[in-house]
Amino acid sequence: MIRSRTQRFLVTAVTAKRRPDDLIVEEPMTIQLDGTVVTTTMRTPGNDFELASGFCHTEGLLAGVPVVGVRYCADGSAVETEFNVVTVETGGRAPTPTPRLGTSSSSCGWCGSDQLDELHQRLDPLPATTPLPLDLLAMMPGLVAARQGLFDATGAVHAAASFDAAGEVRLVREDVGRHNAVDKVVGAMLLAGELPATGLGLFVSGRASVEMVQKAWSAGFGTVVAVSAPTALAVEAARRAGLCLAGFMRGDRFNVYSPERMADPTPT
Amino acid sequence: MIRSRTQRFLVTAVTAKRRPDDLIVEEPMTIQLDGTVVTTTMRTPGNDFELASGFCHTEGLLAGVPVVGVRYCADGSAVETEFNVVTVETGGRAPTPTPRLGTSSSSCGWCGSDQLDELHQRLDPLPATTPLPLDLLAMMPGLVAARQGLFDATGAVHAAASFDAAGEVRLVREDVGRHNAVDKVVGAMLLAGELPATGLGLFVSGRASVEMVQKAWSAGFGTVVAVSAPTALAVEAARRAGLCLAGFMRGDRFNVYSPERMADPTPT
Repeated sequence: MIRSRTQRFLVTAVTAKRRPDDLIVEEPMTIQLDGTVVTTTMRTPGNDFELASGFCHTEGLLAGVPVVGVRYCADGSAVETEFNVVTVETGGRAPTPTPRLGTSSSSCGWCGSDQLDELHQRLDPLPATTPLPLDLLAMMPGLVAARQGLFDATGAVHAAASFDAAGEVRLVREDVGRHNAVDKVVGAMLLAGELPATGLGLFVSGRASVEMVQKAWSAGFGTVVAVSAPTALAVEAARRAGLCLAGFMRGDRFNVYSPERMADPTPT
Repeated sequence: MIRSRTQRFLVTAVTAKRRPDDLIVEEPMTIQLDGTVVTTTMRTPGNDFELASGFCHTEGLLAGVPVVGVRYCADGSAVETEFNVVTVETGGRAPTPTPRLGTSSSSCGWCGSDQLDELHQRLDPLPATTPLPLDLLAMMPGLVAARQGLFDATGAVHAAASFDAAGEVRLVREDVGRHNAVDKVVGAMLLAGELPATGLGLFVSGRASVEMVQKAWSAGFGTVVAVSAPTALAVEAARRAGLCLAGFMRGDRFNVYSPERMADPTPT
């Protein structure tokens, strides 16, 4: 009998290397409207005025009143915190902000349909515009990816971008929060006097929740392209808004969730 | 001269098929603590009591006081909304909830360090426990994926899961909001009397933001595994908590972000 000269064990093969890594920064930022705190959001610093203005616009807090100024709160306190409060000013013309979305409801809650009804009350359906070409929508993830510098560095940051009917990417904003990325794009356009975004598309690097559709609708985007899938409520909101919602992009394949049926191509 | 009999045009090759698709549901849910509204979150319905209890626990609202009841607000109003308000009851023993995280600050903002200081004040560093085996952490995305039924159906939903040192996945919860998925896991353990989660790991299907680390720390998880990358503040929080934070899982490769240096394996 030959005794075996090897014996098999389960071991852990480890490769361990200590190395520097770039991580995305998140810091709290408080947004005030005419001096009243409206929210605190965890955001990636940068484009803070766009974020604050965009948030006030897409949440319907401005009620159509123009922004006359945006500034950091600088009361001489610690340097680390003085860039973490931004005040959007309308000279007191915007209505006094009330607590957000249902948090003050004393009745027995509300549901998604109530939320859509509220949106519908605040926002008109979007004007019918020529749909953006389908092949162009499929190209967006690639076109925007080429400009997602923070994502390349960290792998942990969302992007939003505006694009036009010629397939040109106009604005790209990145943020640790996907809602913030959208608010930064909308805020940049608001401050540049470029709203409503009629005829333009909005690209988002993640999923499309109802809030993303709400923000796009508020800004007047006729088309939203999401890399991942939308939620059921987002699709209902898009159909009510008359907004084209595409998503689940896989190479040149994607789904169109809204409108319910694609129209025949309009001869041009 | 031969005249060409074909001519090349750019055209759009379209494959269009109308088909049913399952989309993830999101509905607003308002959470009350002893009758006071603390937040409204967009969530995927299901495990609502876990979500409400978990949220109150991970946000530090319970202050160590036990939950004596959880119930839907049912005042006889519309059926669609009566499951969208959940009240967590401590018989008035929990402190009256104050507005969330910095929203009521009247000073010139706060920064990430303030936030970590506040966490540190509320939560003790985690007890030193035996680290979970590295090869087990690498297996988690696959093990949990096998139980992400809603993700398989919709592609638009996050998961959180608890697992033990033997690599057994104990609880999986899915939600359109990644924070909600974690709160559902924590709430389930709270209601079952299984907190703190000492010696267990928490898996999250997305990125690790500071709030995810806060929630894991609050529940006593010693290890967090995130499929994607963490933020800088999340890593700082994990290092303060004494929590092992692994992420950026790519097959059997991943990064360990906290502790700052991996210890030599403890002989067993």
